[in-house]
Amino acid sequence: MVAGAVVLASILPVQQLRAEDGYELWLRYRPVESAHAGEYRGAVMQLVAAATTPTQIVTRAELRRGLGGLLGAAVPLSDVVTSNGALIVGTPASSPLVGKLELDTDQLGGDGYLIRSVIVDGHRATVIAANDDLGALYGAFHFLRLLQTRQSLDRIDVRVIPRIKLRVLNHWDNLDGHVERGYAGASIWDWHKLPDWVDPRYTDYARANASLGINGTVLNNVNSNALSLTPMYLAKAAALANVLRPYGIRVYLSARFSAPKEIGGLKTADPLDSAVRRWWKDKADEIYKTIPDFGGFLVKANSEGQPGPQDYGRSHADGANMLADALAPHGGVVMWRAFVYSSEQPDDRAKQAYTEFVPLDGKFRDNVIVQVKNGAIDFQPREPFHPLFGAMPKTPLMMEFQITKEYLGFATHLAYLGTLYQETLQSDTMAQGQGSTVARVIDGSLHGHKVTGMAGVANIGTDRNWSGSHFDQANWYAYGRLAWDPSQSSREIARDWVRMTFSNDQPFVDSVVDMMMGSREAVVDYMTPLGLHHLMGRDHHYGPGPWVAGGPRADWTSVYYHRADRNGIGFDRSATGSNAVAQYAPPLADSFGDVKRVPEQFLLWFHHLPWDYRTRSGRPLWDELVHRYTRGVNEVKKMRTTWDGLRGHVDAERHAQVAAFLAIQQKEAQWWRDASIAYFQRINGLPLPPGYAPPAQPLEYYEALSFPYAPGNG
Amino acid sequence: MVAGAVVLASILPVQQLRAEDGYELWLRYRPVESAHAGEYRGAVMQLVAAATTPTQIVTRAELRRGLGGLLGAAVPLSDVVTSNGALIVGTPASSPLVGKLELDTDQLGGDGYLIRSVIVDGHRATVIAANDDLGALYGAFHFLRLLQTRQSLDRIDVRVIPRIKLRVLNHWDNLDGHVERGYAGASIWDWHKLPDWVDPRYTDYARANASLGINGTVLNNVNSNALSLTPMYLAKAAALANVLRPYGIRVYLSARFSAPKEIGGLKTADPLDSAVRRWWKDKADEIYKTIPDFGGFLVKANSEGQPGPQDYGRSHADGANMLADALAPHGGVVMWRAFVYSSEQPDDRAKQAYTEFVPLDGKFRDNVIVQVKNGAIDFQPREPFHPLFGAMPKTPLMMEFQITKEYLGFATHLAYLGTLYQETLQSDTMAQGQGSTVARVIDGSLHGHKVTGMAGVANIGTDRNWSGSHFDQANWYAYGRLAWDPSQSSREIARDWVRMTFSNDQPFVDSVVDMMMGSREAVVDYMTPLGLHHLMGRDHHYGPGPWVAGGPRADWTSVYYHRADRNGIGFDRSATGSNAVAQYAPPLADSFGDVKRVPEQFLLWFHHLPWDYRTRSGRPLWDELVHRYTRGVNEVKKMRTTWDGLRGHVDAERHAQVAAFLAIQQKEAQWWRDASIAYFQRINGLPLPPGYAPPAQPLEYYEALSFPYAPGNG
Repeated sequence: MVAGAVVLASILPVQQLRAEDGYELWLRYRPVESAHAGEYRGAVMQLVAAATTPTQIVTRAELRRGLGGLLGAAVPLSDVVTSNGALIVGTPASSPLVGKLELDTDQLGGDGYLIRSVIVDGHRATVIAANDDLGALYGAFHFLRLLQTRQSLDRIDVRVIPRIKLRVLNHWDNLDGHVERGYAGASIWDWHKLPDWVDPRYTDYARANASLGINGTVLNNVNSNALSLTPMYLAKAAALANVLRPYGIRVYLSARFSAPKEIGGLKTADPLDSAVRRWWKDKADEIYKTIPDFGGFLVKANSEGQPGPQDYGRSHADGANMLADALAPHGGVVMWRAFVYSSEQPDDRAKQAYTEFVPLDGKFRDNVIVQVKNGAIDFQPREPFHPLFGAMPKTPLMMEFQITKEYLGFATHLAYLGTLYQETLQSDTMAQGQGSTVARVIDGSLHGHKVTGMAGVANIGTDRNWSGSHFDQANWYAYGRLAWDPSQSSREIARDWVRMTFSNDQPFVDSVVDMMMGSREAVVDYMTPLGLHHLMGRDHHYGPGPWVAGGPRADWTSVYYHRADRNGIGFDRSATGSNAVAQYAPPLADSFGDVKRVPEQFLLWFHHLPWDYRTRSGRPLWDELVHRYTRGVNEVKKMRTTWDGLRGHVDAERHAQVAAFLAIQQKEAQWWRDASIAYFQRINGLPLPPGYAPPAQPLEYYEALSFPYAPGNG
Repeated sequence: MVAGAVVLASILPVQQLRAEDGYELWLRYRPVESAHAGEYRGAVMQLVAAATTPTQIVTRAELRRGLGGLLGAAVPLSDVVTSNGALIVGTPASSPLVGKLELDTDQLGGDGYLIRSVIVDGHRATVIAANDDLGALYGAFHFLRLLQTRQSLDRIDVRVIPRIKLRVLNHWDNLDGHVERGYAGASIWDWHKLPDWVDPRYTDYARANASLGINGTVLNNVNSNALSLTPMYLAKAAALANVLRPYGIRVYLSARFSAPKEIGGLKTADPLDSAVRRWWKDKADEIYKTIPDFGGFLVKANSEGQPGPQDYGRSHADGANMLADALAPHGGVVMWRAFVYSSEQPDDRAKQAYTEFVPLDGKFRDNVIVQVKNGAIDFQPREPFHPLFGAMPKTPLMMEFQITKEYLGFATHLAYLGTLYQETLQSDTMAQGQGSTVARVIDGSLHGHKVTGMAGVANIGTDRNWSGSHFDQANWYAYGRLAWDPSQSSREIARDWVRMTFSNDQPFVDSVVDMMMGSREAVVDYMTPLGLHHLMGRDHHYGPGPWVAGGPRADWTSVYYHRADRNGIGFDRSATGSNAVAQYAPPLADSFGDVKRVPEQFLLWFHHLPWDYRTRSGRPLWDELVHRYTRGVNEVKKMRTTWDGLRGHVDAERHAQVAAFLAIQQKEAQWWRDASIAYFQRINGLPLPPGYAPPAQPLEYYEALSFPYAPGNG
């Protein structure tokens, strides 16, 4: 039956073949056009790759799948090179051929690789070589990408080493299948059926991540449940670890700090209590019996109501070090989050992580890494880099980016985050003078750290296309590529992604990449221009809510952040205000604190200014805000026009969904603009500048909108 | 690019083609083997079908898709018959050709159809004819089924009329995407993105349902939320109605009885209050403006804490009639559920619906239909038919079956429910003497009702295979086929399903159908043999819980139902007990009430008996129970062996998942058996009969198991 289907497939109508539903992500491996097919077929006439270890097996399988798809026919396997066009894959240990080539693999480490055109026994060949199997797998994905993006295979000489050691996804997935801030359906982890049913999707998840070099995944939410550490759930996590292991991906768990009480029967979780310390040691031993390559713990402690060492008068270092001691014998690490703020309200929440963590610099164990969000508030469309970067020279700091778009339009808004990540990574902390970029803090080169890491809060769910929208796949992709090497260009990454995901048609690629590159700025414009931040709907964070006030704490409201009144708007974080600018290195503190020198994109982040303050365009502040809100909406309109013009360059199914989502984005961008303008206009009583349309509805309309079932909440 | 993919597909490895992930359900349309292809191609050389109306358009598209897939090439369209082998589809009104044939369509109604071999202008042709477009669509699916199941097309003479008017799915889907008692992922309704994003999956849902003749769907949970009736959500429901309409599927909503208070601003929801009546009238008018073919309301009132007319001292008839009056001008119906039980605990919950509803017989409006679960408790693996069937001659009664397997092993246990449905439908109520089957109550023929209906609680979710497991698709399928005609054979239905879903390979079909036919009995054996019932884990209903006791109400416990003590077991519903038997027609009451005559499958449903009671096998009751528990487990082992032997007869992907699920089923069957035996053994202190293995664990082990995140709860 199945064989019959294959024979007949070629005469079936197109729609009978697989729909382009996005499931395959950037690993689509569709046949290359004839212009390139000849060169590629000539370059890959035979595949010489061992398949003894699990990683070797998946490496060879991926190459056969990928090359078979791209070249339209299975590539023959061979043990030896018998003709021009051999592709040789392996390590000096696994492949005598690779060994004989005496390649300079010394500096590659375990994950690095090289791809090089070589001559073997008089035949032209390409070698993918690494020191470890995993490096060869990464190299194989790189080689496939060369074909997927139509690069020449002539005289290749590629040598790639990751600059970050721990490249990790954080799943904010609960045991009941809900994904906090998830907009792509439910958790892909089917905890109920694990470990007995191991969904083949987990393998595709592993492939996609390995193709980017991601080598770790935290399976459960940082707002964690102690049950994740019970034997029943450890067996489930172990089943996942077994799937991920050949792809070089280690499993981590978010650890609930109070677990010794909740599942251990202890009366305390005090990190200096010997019974507690014993409990965690035993728990670590138990975990490593089940998952021998377990990565370690991620911990959110004393933050937003989570338990932590401060409950017992201990410091974050006390808590982290206790867990680190339990994991150390097994080689595990503790990723301790710096996203903390106590229940007392500070004068400025933006200052709190710095205030709490800088005094702890140097007090953490070697296997602790402090995980810091890109900005000091919470994954806003734009934030200045977090002042902790550069301020803890004795402590390795790990970047935490959010891939899921909690604050950038959920799944429907097209917002490419590569530019956001790059903007943060390329920010200069000035900690050791010019060139002390955040990237150099993260990659350990600035302060000489060996444990380095980057975390991305995953946007993955059970939706067929994994990420809720086709373009949100690009954010997973860009995160992974930047975690490997934070110096990469977000535009180059977007280009690769478009080619692999959609098409190599040059006009299509150019148009779509341009659209992506401007997309996040459009969101900033229609949501939070000029440094405004945290103005979204309460709890679910869906849509505009600049009027949000009251409730349990001031720093969960919008009015706390925009501080708009009849006279002006903005959060004064200069020396006349909260002085948060002083948390940055002196040259930056000076410029951020000076209204004349602060980058205008952070104007109202750092300064409270009168509505008639003259901005750099010459427009008064109020007019500039209205201008930017409107510009954001117009940008979305342009994106729609661009996309509509690309119909026919891409399959109808994905085109239709993107078009529908862009229509939603335009509607919601207009909603953000109109609601924000209506609200601020009530505050300042000012007219709109000429030529700008008034909000479509009165303010009361926007305030009354209610979305109790917006996704991702809780 | 896409065209290139088609050309190259034939030389790609098999796994590059679409995976058999179950998404296509029974509408797979894979190429037929050459043995049949010749006949079929000869019979379908051209397609003559109008495509003017939306239903005609989807009919023709389905035929082109189906025939194109089955025959391996697109079937040419034609306006006239120019050769042998024309397939003519239409109504006398839409097709002059059909009109000219002067077929006897008079008795077909709107949904019926005939398929007949005819001669047109001297050419052999097949006609699919109906009075309405929808009948022709149903006929088209029937015709495709003939090919899918490899029936001869020679001298066809098929004439099919549905015996039930309202063939409805009930989705227990909440607005937050959770599906109560759902084991197939989240709700397929993406309420958040509706109405702007209309997932193509909705169209495939419509196709699958129309292929069975299902013509209605209740979108939201019977435990309903008044927000479903607000303008925002009505617009979303309307977008779904637009997709479903061409397929003849009407949208219904579960109505929360207290909506006038919750969203209407009224102080009461008293059905005799004039403001309340006005509110519902206005609401109905508003709904029909948005959804002109809206089907009506489904209501769960005064049941398990839901609001209802009894809150105001009114009867179910008062409540239903008020809603019926609001819907009547628009042609809508009220489906009023009889699954009620008040907060006071009766002597026997099984009696309550009868007690409350029989006195209301004749008091309902013409557009009210009372929806009755198949049994008096709650969708147990086996129950006697509900005593209301036959007991309300003046009221049309609608069957409510559960397709989702709340009590039969969730998604992983293979339990074909066609046999359960058939057992109920063929039960003889004796209400008007012998032959008064439940089917004849439901189809209106027994008491002369015109409004007839059957509801199935859907097992559909976002899982790729729709139903959580491949075999659970068969329950959706069987429900739909039986809703169309309750006299059909569950074995025939299983056979069709296997052929359409998996393979026409005869040994495969025979083995799998046999396995399916015995599967539900196996579940009865390992969960609730001999008439035991309601013994599952509390709340989530996952796994055995015969020890469940205490809590808010006795009739939510297991001990209430099994009543086991040192001396015996079973619920005495005979005249010496609750006398629930008296709710059945006298001949049945007599036999059910007589321990010697009661069908043994209901022994402990109706009788409390000593542990040493001699069953029909000659074994004492306790030994018989142990025997049946064990037999159930052994049956699952046999199913595994059968399925393992079919490897290679079916694609590897689906084979693997079914095999994994059968392994889970075996483990859980053993768990049910062992836990039940351990529990009852503690009660009766009796030894196991010789040759039977003791439980693997002590009772305390089973009692301590905890599954706070079992799916489907709440």
